[in-house]
Amino acid sequence: MNTQERWFPGHLRELDTTDCWELVRAHEVGRVAFVDERGPMVVPVTFTCGTGSVLFRVAAYSEVGRHLSGARVALEVDDFDPFTRSGWNVVLRGVLEVVEIDQLPPPEDRPTPWPEGLRSLYLRLTPDTVTGRRLLEA
Amino acid sequence: MNTQERWFPGHLRELDTTDCWELVRAHEVGRVAFVDERGPMVVPVTFTCGTGSVLFRVAAYSEVGRHLSGARVALEVDDFDPFTRSGWNVVLRGVLEVVEIDQLPPPEDRPTPWPEGLRSLYLRLTPDTVTGRRLLEA
Repeated sequence: MNTQERWFPGHLRELDTTDCWELVRAHEVGRVAFVDERGPMVVPVTFTCGTGSVLFRVAAYSEVGRHLSGARVALEVDDFDPFTRSGWNVVLRGVLEVVEIDQLPPPEDRPTPWPEGLRSLYLRLTPDTVTGRRLLEA
Repeated sequence: MNTQERWFPGHLRELDTTDCWELVRAHEVGRVAFVDERGPMVVPVTFTCGTGSVLFRVAAYSEVGRHLSGARVALEVDDFDPFTRSGWNVVLRGVLEVVEIDQLPPPEDRPTPWPEGLRSLYLRLTPDTVTGRRLLEA
């Protein structure tokens, strides 16, 4: 929280960048939105957080792998509770870059994809925009 | 499940359309991906399910409202469990249309946005593509 925060109707509070990163860092699953031949698409990914960037890993031959190298994307992370109708979401927007093997962080800081199988392409998103909102219980 | 289903490495199973709709129908929060001036964007929405379509409601003056009328989008619904590393996701892709007030379903079948405030624009997505995957526990 800081003095810059804006309030919205319905207990919707805009999060500052520090809060956004803290929430993203505490999670490991997000959804990456990109554009393919048929328009906007969304795919769930597991990720790890670096300093000012997130790293995720996809199959090089996959739809994501084909479309995401060098592409502009939005990574969304959220947590909502349908019972209290509250929660938060954060969106990181920027260009993805392929990370070569020798540029990777140590293995313990690399994302582990949940599905088994070959996931050979590492992609790093260094967002130019980080936004988030928290919806408090009414 | 049907005989057409494909299996992927890591207990990843492709869901058929019936299973996808059943999962979507049992949920009320999704994320809609669209494209604005700065590329792909994702916003959480609450929705209700009709027959072969979903309905959601946004503020007419909002970013979503400005970009989504007549636009091609992807609505993603998912549920993942970080402890068992399992879950599912469904993506509905198609063009959004504005629904006029006199074309709306009865009030009980309309989506209730969680944040309070004016949410005056109803949008209907009738997807041309419905895909989903379930990741079983390893």
